[in-house]
Amino acid sequence: MPRETKIPLPTLERLATCYRYLTDIESRNVETISSSAIETATGIHAAQFRKDLSYFGVFGRPGIGYDVDDLKRRIAGILKVENEQPVILVGAGNLGSALVGFFGLPQHNFHIVAVFDNNPRKIGQTLWDLQVQDVGRLSETNAQLGARIGIIAGPAVAAQNITDVLVDAGIRVILNFAPTTIRVPDGVGVRNVCFIQELAVLSYYLSKLPEPNVG
Amino acid sequence: MPRETKIPLPTLERLATCYRYLTDIESRNVETISSSAIETATGIHAAQFRKDLSYFGVFGRPGIGYDVDDLKRRIAGILKVENEQPVILVGAGNLGSALVGFFGLPQHNFHIVAVFDNNPRKIGQTLWDLQVQDVGRLSETNAQLGARIGIIAGPAVAAQNITDVLVDAGIRVILNFAPTTIRVPDGVGVRNVCFIQELAVLSYYLSKLPEPNVG
Repeated sequence: MPRETKIPLPTLERLATCYRYLTDIESRNVETISSSAIETATGIHAAQFRKDLSYFGVFGRPGIGYDVDDLKRRIAGILKVENEQPVILVGAGNLGSALVGFFGLPQHNFHIVAVFDNNPRKIGQTLWDLQVQDVGRLSETNAQLGARIGIIAGPAVAAQNITDVLVDAGIRVILNFAPTTIRVPDGVGVRNVCFIQELAVLSYYLSKLPEPNVG
Repeated sequence: MPRETKIPLPTLERLATCYRYLTDIESRNVETISSSAIETATGIHAAQFRKDLSYFGVFGRPGIGYDVDDLKRRIAGILKVENEQPVILVGAGNLGSALVGFFGLPQHNFHIVAVFDNNPRKIGQTLWDLQVQDVGRLSETNAQLGARIGIIAGPAVAAQNITDVLVDAGIRVILNFAPTTIRVPDGVGVRNVCFIQELAVLSYYLSKLPEPNVG
């Protein structure tokens, strides 16, 4: 991520974590939440979280906490996720299919509007309600769609080519699931989701646990 | 993650990010790497990274940097990812299928050894080379397998039930892909991968970009 982003990345990540949690509890009809309850659920330290929010002029009420609906709306405003945003996806395999299904959920404002692949056996097939298109037509298609968010769900060997195609087509931020490092020009943002990396962190934690009692 | 973990979580995350990057460049036959080249590729600040490594007595050579193979081995030793570890997965949908394929790659030491689902239409089907088993038999099966790492790739509504089954079966760390918060007893570690959260961070970044020139 570029250094000129005004809010520190860890603050953004905490707000995004909290946003997810608020969406979750809102669906269970929870009306107010304290920062310590948020800490228990998400691992975000309460004092840190209050500090993050105070930066945006958002304060809880002592002894009560935050109104869930209001807090969610405020964080959505900070993260700019209040409005629907079109997303294009490259890679129509199992992961791509899972992502299309996932982002089809009505509670999210990210909508995958087009899916691309370079495999002739996949092009023309239907993924949920979208027809898989030839990646060679991505730029042309996105000239109509105007998406600025792209997702790479292809294999590592294809990731750089896909990146170049996305950037050429006007994509400005990329969520990369391919287990490789992609290079982007200045001004294009990337986040990598790497399953191995997540398991590596858990692996360290596992190594520090006491062995279970035997016998 | 529990607070008694000795290495700060951000350090672990940086090491895991770097580990992934080293795996990546090793396959391209890169032999040495400087901390500033690591910064360019991964976004981890060079000074921070050198500090992280010096904590473990790992130092680069001035003007040369780190030997890729050695650095990878040292980080693998810190994260405890040198040896093969069995992993069990619950949820045999598209995401589960993508994960089984992904962790089937030979360069990783995490191997999914069993897949479970509660859907009678999925139980008995083959996912890559694994037969999907009834989640009701998870505890019994894991008594044989001895896995301590579990992955949840089921829907949000099922996630807490799956968590309880995994914990009962001796799983001590969980990678959760369900878009909901799961509750675990003390001493069980969780990491959440949330696609929405990742897009929310990118969405903020996108909102700060200058509009492209028009006309």
